[in-house]
Amino acid sequence: MKGSSEHGETSKAPLGRGGVSKGVSVLDLILRFIAIIGTLASAIAMGTTNETLPFFTQFIRFKAQYSDLPTLTFFVVANSIVCAYLILSLPLSIVHIIRSRAKYSRLLLIFLDAAMLALVTAGASAAAAIVYLAHKGNVRANWLSICQQFDSFCERISGSLIGSFGAMVMLILLILLSAIALARR
Amino acid sequence: MKGSSEHGETSKAPLGRGGVSKGVSVLDLILRFIAIIGTLASAIAMGTTNETLPFFTQFIRFKAQYSDLPTLTFFVVANSIVCAYLILSLPLSIVHIIRSRAKYSRLLLIFLDAAMLALVTAGASAAAAIVYLAHKGNVRANWLSICQQFDSFCERISGSLIGSFGAMVMLILLILLSAIALARR
Repeated sequence: MKGSSEHGETSKAPLGRGGVSKGVSVLDLILRFIAIIGTLASAIAMGTTNETLPFFTQFIRFKAQYSDLPTLTFFVVANSIVCAYLILSLPLSIVHIIRSRAKYSRLLLIFLDAAMLALVTAGASAAAAIVYLAHKGNVRANWLSICQQFDSFCERISGSLIGSFGAMVMLILLILLSAIALARR
Repeated sequence: MKGSSEHGETSKAPLGRGGVSKGVSVLDLILRFIAIIGTLASAIAMGTTNETLPFFTQFIRFKAQYSDLPTLTFFVVANSIVCAYLILSLPLSIVHIIRSRAKYSRLLLIFLDAAMLALVTAGASAAAAIVYLAHKGNVRANWLSICQQFDSFCERISGSLIGSFGAMVMLILLILLSAIALARR
């Protein structure tokens, strides 16, 4: 069925191949949904994080929120951008289920998926580096752990990373799926 | 017309397409070399970083090296792994110049390239988060900048990131090139 239909030699190609291509495209759509949920959950979980300690002095109120650390703000922004891109890519993914021979649109998706993979990985691992520091601190640089005071804050920012790393794995699989679809045309 | 040579109709295929595929494969090889140089330079520049301050007390000698910060160690490891992978992928890339119709080996390369893209991005952005902290510090978390004391250390670790981010861009382009080669088969 691949490529031959435009030359009017449909009978030559085995039927099974079109079915597999359709299966790959449907799987592509499902993985995109999972990645959307992952990035959205990460962005929301991190974006709504704040903790106010029950004690305060006359001058300072002890409060921690994600925007205190620029890296965590980048994490929220990166996840939001990737989530928006994935939502925008859904129509194209649906088109691929119907037209499984599409070529240039798949190339475009592979390129953008790779760029978004880099973005979501950058956000997740930069945030992970800061979360690690918040938990462990660093003796040599004299950076103390802040997790003893801000316990629930730390738990929340650690948990937020999961969705992002999940989306990372999904995007690697999405790139592979698009490549398989291209190879099977 | 693509894919027709396996049915013994080679004469049908235009010569230009083979030439373009060959060009894509050669470009693939060149980009791999650039990425190897980038990751190698990053790993070496970061791995050889240390600075001993000219003053010391009776008990403490002020010395900074990359292994003081676990994230920077991860950066060196990630870059070394990606560099080793890229060197190992060279023979396959050369095979692709000769056999431009290869399919499964290209799929394998796309998958591994995507995984390595994630790894090098993780290393680079985690290190960037720490380098940013070393430069600016963070008032809310009470983490002070260490770059005033360890000036040349900071310059060195900042510079090390460049090669890694360059390799990141190269890997995105490599994924796109492999996809183009698959689509053009």
